Amino acid sequence: MKIAIDGMGGDNAPAAVIEGIIQALEEYKDIEMYITGPEKEINEELSKYNYEKDKINVIDATEVISTNEHPVMAVRKKKDSSLVKAMNLVKDGTCDAVISGGSTGAFLAGCTFIVGRMKGVERPALAPIMPGRNGSFMIVDVGANVDCKPSYLVQFAKMGKVYYEKVFNVKNPTVGLINIGAEEEKGNELTKSTYQLLKEHNELNFIGNVEPRDISTGDTNILVSDGFVGNTALKMYEGTASTLLKVMKDEIMKSSIISKAGVLLLKPVLKKIMKRFDYKEYGGAPFLGVDGICIKAHGSSDARAFKNAIRQTDIFYKNDVLNHMKNEFNN
Amino acid sequence: MKIAIDGMGGDNAPAAVIEGIIQALEEYKDIEMYITGPEKEINEELSKYNYEKDKINVIDATEVISTNEHPVMAVRKKKDSSLVKAMNLVKDGTCDAVISGGSTGAFLAGCTFIVGRMKGVERPALAPIMPGRNGSFMIVDVGANVDCKPSYLVQFAKMGKVYYEKVFNVKNPTVGLINIGAEEEKGNELTKSTYQLLKEHNELNFIGNVEPRDISTGDTNILVSDGFVGNTALKMYEGTASTLLKVMKDEIMKSSIISKAGVLLLKPVLKKIMKRFDYKEYGGAPFLGVDGICIKAHGSSDARAFKNAIRQTDIFYKNDVLNHMKNEFNN
Repeated sequence: MKIAIDGMGGDNAPAAVIEGIIQALEEYKDIEMYITGPEKEINEELSKYNYEKDKINVIDATEVISTNEHPVMAVRKKKDSSLVKAMNLVKDGTCDAVISGGSTGAFLAGCTFIVGRMKGVERPALAPIMPGRNGSFMIVDVGANVDCKPSYLVQFAKMGKVYYEKVFNVKNPTVGLINIGAEEEKGNELTKSTYQLLKEHNELNFIGNVEPRDISTGDTNILVSDGFVGNTALKMYEGTASTLLKVMKDEIMKSSIISKAGVLLLKPVLKKIMKRFDYKEYGGAPFLGVDGICIKAHGSSDARAFKNAIRQTDIFYKNDVLNHMKNEFNN
Repeated sequence: MKIAIDGMGGDNAPAAVIEGIIQALEEYKDIEMYITGPEKEINEELSKYNYEKDKINVIDATEVISTNEHPVMAVRKKKDSSLVKAMNLVKDGTCDAVISGGSTGAFLAGCTFIVGRMKGVERPALAPIMPGRNGSFMIVDVGANVDCKPSYLVQFAKMGKVYYEKVFNVKNPTVGLINIGAEEEKGNELTKSTYQLLKEHNELNFIGNVEPRDISTGDTNILVSDGFVGNTALKMYEGTASTLLKVMKDEIMKSSIISKAGVLLLKPVLKKIMKRFDYKEYGGAPFLGVDGICIKAHGSSDARAFKNAIRQTDIFYKNDVLNHMKNEFNN
C-alpha cells in the first residue's frame, strides 16, 4: 500500500516522522511512503539512514500549518502545506492512506474538505483506541463534532463496530453510550434520545449506558458520545494517569532510602505498566466516515508512535475496513 | 451548630453514619446532631458507644429512599423518609445544616423542593472538592444540571468563588471553564457563549479555558461546566485512578518475589499517595445555591468520610458562607 505522511506534523517533526518511517519499512514489507514537506529538510533527515530508496518518495511542500492557526482557513489558504499536499495524494489516488501528527483541527478539516465524506455518513468522527484494564476500547467521537444530534451518535456506533470488528477481529463488539447514570432515563437531552435510537438498532450489540467511572476497565469495546464529552473523557484519562505518576514520583523523592530501594526492585513492573498505558503503542486515531484511510497521530508522537501509526494504517488497509464501512452505509 | 443527618443514607448506613457522628462529637465541640431514621435501629447502633446524650437527638423516620427510585417522586411521596425528615429539620429552623450519603438525585430534589433555592440563583449546583497534584480544586457542577445555559455557569463560578474563598481562605481564587481547547474560540455552543460572559465579570479571577488534561494538576481552584461534562470529568478521575491502582496490583501479583519485596519497602509511600487521593478525607460535596447548608456525602462513605463531612459542615457554618453567598446574589 502507498501511505502519504505529513512530514512536518507533530511536535517532533520531521525527525521523529522520518525515524518512524525507517523503522516501519524494516518491519512491514508491502508499504511505500510519500513524505510531504520542505524537500531539502526532509532529504537531510533521510540522509541519516540507510533504506530502500524506491520505497520513499519526497513530495516538496513549502508551507507548514501550525496548531495555532484557524484550521479551516489554514487548509483553504495553504495549498502548498505539508498537510494539504498529503491529503491531495489520497484524493488524486496516488496514495491509499494519509497520516499526520499535526494540528488536529486542520487534519479534520483537510480530511473532510479534501478527502471528502463517505456517502451516507452525516458526520465523520475521530476514534482513538485506548488501553483499558481488561482490553482496548474505542471512543467515538473525541472532538470532531462538539454539538451532536442523536442520529450522529448512532452512526458513530456503526462505524466503530466495523472498525473494531475488522481491526481487532472481534465479532459483534459491545457498544455503550457514555452517560452519567446507568438507567435508561438518565442523562441529558442528547443521551436520552440517543438511547432510544440505539435500542432499535438490532445490528448493534448495544449494552446500554456506560458511566465514565467504568470506561477505563475496557469491558465495553466501543463507547459513543458527542465530541465534547468524548474529548473530556479521553483527556481526563490521559491527565489523571499522568498526574498519578507524577504524585508517585513526588512522594518517592521525599521518601526514605528504603522506599527508594523499593522503587528499584519494582522497576520491571513499573515499566510493564507504563507500556500497557502508553498511547504510543496504539498508533493514532482513525478519522472514521471519510472516504479514505485517515489516521491522526498524537501531537507528541515519537518515532515509535509514528511507526505504530503506520502499522495501524496497514491493518486498516489489509482488512478492507473502508469498503466494509461503505457497505454498512449503503444498505 | 445543629446538624441534621440522614441516618439511612449511604451504602454503609446506619452503622457508618453513627460511628462517624461519634468520632465527630469527640473532635468538634460546638455541634449537636439530629439523626433521622427508624428509631429502634438507630438507637441500637448508638447503644454501642459512649457519648454525651444531650448532643444527639434521634428523629424517627419509618421510610427509606433507595437509589433506584425516581428522585422527585420519592421525595414527594415518602414524607416519612429519613431524607425528607432531615430536610424538614433545616426548613423549619431546627437545624442549620443537612448531610446525606443517600441517593444523589433524591438529595438534590429534597434540597431544591424542601430547603429551597437561594434568591437570585437560577440553578443550584453540586460542587465536590477534589485532590489535585498541586492543590485542591472544585468542579461546579457535577450533575445537578445536565443541560445548561451560559448564565448558569456564570452563577456556578460566583458560588464557587465564595465557597472557595471562605472555606479554604484563598483570596481571589482562580476560575477556569472546562473546555476541549485552550483558545477563546474553541468548544461547543455552551462554552463559547459562557467564555464571553465570564470575561465580562471582573469580580471573578477568570483565567480562561482549562483543558480536561490539566484539571488534575489542581492549578485552577474552581472549574465550571455543565453537570454532564463535570460529572464525566469527576467520574473519569475516580475511575482512572482506581483502574491504574488495579493494574499495578495485577502486575505485582504476576511479578517476581523481588518486585514483591519492592512493594513492601514502598508501603509507607503508597499509603501516603492513597491518602492524598482519598475522597474520604475531603468530606462531601456542598450543594451550592440552596437556602441552607446541604452536604452530599459519597454513597460509599465510611465512618471517617461521615466525620469529615461533619467537619466540613462546621467550617461552612462558622465562616458564614451562606450569608456571604446571599450577599453575592443580592447585589
